[in-house]
Amino acid sequence: MSEKVLVGVDVGGTKTAVLLSMCLPDVLARKEFPTLPAEGPERAIEMIKAGIHEILTGQRLTEADIQGIGVSCGGPLDRVAGVIQSPPNLPTWTDVPITSILEKEFHTGCQLENDANAGAVAENRFGAGQGFRNMVFLTMGTGLGAGIILDGHLYHGTTDLAGEIGHVRLTRRGPIGYNKAGSVEGWASGGGMAQVALRAVELAQKRGKKTLLAEHLQTHQAITARDVGIAAQQGDALAKQIIQSTGRRLGEALAILVDILNPEVIVIGGLAMRLGESLLAPARAVVKRESLAAEVCQIVPAALGEKIGDIAALCVATGL
Amino acid sequence: MSEKVLVGVDVGGTKTAVLLSMCLPDVLARKEFPTLPAEGPERAIEMIKAGIHEILTGQRLTEADIQGIGVSCGGPLDRVAGVIQSPPNLPTWTDVPITSILEKEFHTGCQLENDANAGAVAENRFGAGQGFRNMVFLTMGTGLGAGIILDGHLYHGTTDLAGEIGHVRLTRRGPIGYNKAGSVEGWASGGGMAQVALRAVELAQKRGKKTLLAEHLQTHQAITARDVGIAAQQGDALAKQIIQSTGRRLGEALAILVDILNPEVIVIGGLAMRLGESLLAPARAVVKRESLAAEVCQIVPAALGEKIGDIAALCVATGL
Repeated sequence: MSEKVLVGVDVGGTKTAVLLSMCLPDVLARKEFPTLPAEGPERAIEMIKAGIHEILTGQRLTEADIQGIGVSCGGPLDRVAGVIQSPPNLPTWTDVPITSILEKEFHTGCQLENDANAGAVAENRFGAGQGFRNMVFLTMGTGLGAGIILDGHLYHGTTDLAGEIGHVRLTRRGPIGYNKAGSVEGWASGGGMAQVALRAVELAQKRGKKTLLAEHLQTHQAITARDVGIAAQQGDALAKQIIQSTGRRLGEALAILVDILNPEVIVIGGLAMRLGESLLAPARAVVKRESLAAEVCQIVPAALGEKIGDIAALCVATGL
Repeated sequence: MSEKVLVGVDVGGTKTAVLLSMCLPDVLARKEFPTLPAEGPERAIEMIKAGIHEILTGQRLTEADIQGIGVSCGGPLDRVAGVIQSPPNLPTWTDVPITSILEKEFHTGCQLENDANAGAVAENRFGAGQGFRNMVFLTMGTGLGAGIILDGHLYHGTTDLAGEIGHVRLTRRGPIGYNKAGSVEGWASGGGMAQVALRAVELAQKRGKKTLLAEHLQTHQAITARDVGIAAQQGDALAKQIIQSTGRRLGEALAILVDILNPEVIVIGGLAMRLGESLLAPARAVVKRESLAAEVCQIVPAALGEKIGDIAALCVATGL
């Protein structure tokens, strides 16, 4: 057959997916397996190789049909050398030369990109960022990452460290994110929200205030951002307040991005997709108050949902 | 003659210069006159036209020899339409269509650019930013402006409002800059430093501490950033402290730029050229502590000195 196929590899801390696409964003074939980082990278790499061979064969394709391979993975990584360095979600993966491993196996070009940048391109081409030349994509998960597209191109920075808004300080003290107390990641990520929630629940308990989150804490010995979202949906007042104050802190971070980058759109994945307006409305109010070009900047949740990792990896295969 | 000439117009609140260049950064001819904004824009525009005709004639050139005209001016302005809107330093200039006025007069293309962006390009091509692809240029005058060069190109943002680091909040309260208390411009511009100095002197007087700045305040009823610099040179301890704390606040702003843009160099004009290491050393210390990619980012004073306005305007004439 004459048409070439893109191969995507989305390496996550929990699961890894290998993908084929003839025409983005459509996924032609997909295979997923647990990454099992505790067992080291070797097994996962064998699964990636075998998985790609399997889905190619399933489509009656060979390695000669591959246009390019793209790997999307959490940082830190060396994009230019194609090496996964030491992502916190893959603790046993140290300096894995993933692109040369796959290039050797499939005799074709392979690119590596961090997942926030790959997600930015995916949302820019096929999601909530379509048609925008200046865009910031934020991944609001346990941490807070960003991918920046300026004048239509992904901006990496000098040493691939552009977009580290999660590391920017908002306050002198505060919840910890990115090893920094009072950082944007401390205040406005899933992990940060969990810290804020824990303090709020302890304070509520001292004051004898009732909250579903206190019961949750007693049963599970922990509170996650997800738990706060569920409690808010069940009408819990404290949970709603926590989401609102996280939204305001998120807004402070977005205001900085708006004043420095003057983007047309900020697309937010992860928590923002699940919590929606309860998080984004207070964020927008702060951006409007704090930044100069707020009226030209839309602030919207990501649109690709669960598919973002697949499409992001396949976008990397296009060479971005 | 076969070689074409660039025409530059540097419009400032105090003086305006018209310039010719055959080969940047060399200035072939120059004429300067007071802008006198109180008298309205008409007179200044006539002076600009007459000045360009005069320096062309002086070089035995005609309008047919012009390659392009560049106008550099403080914002706000509409770069695309070529209209100077309402700069605070030119209070009577409202919606002056400067590029069409000059295109009509000289029958050649004319571009308008704000002075921070033009200065960024000038320092990038001929000053302290030479050879760097990712650079931030800060003008530290009464206000604080920035021009951003990313992947070798000037980045304007969606509505020409990129680089407004002066508007970013550092603290909830504090000195006022950009109509915002606690902003970067409030803390780390010449105007902000003057406010900080005034408070520091009042406090010193209350506590009976001696400082040259108190005598200065009594004589002149005001303290400027320049006065603080002079007092520091004369060994005044309070003046030195003020410069140091301004440097630390500047460092907080630079750390944000480093975490978001991961630049190779930050070039700082105005105050930083005059105060040098007394301002930049404390700024660097904060950047090192606060940002991820500090070690790959040089922080240096601008190198073009008094010539920056001339060269910046001429750079605009190249089409940037």
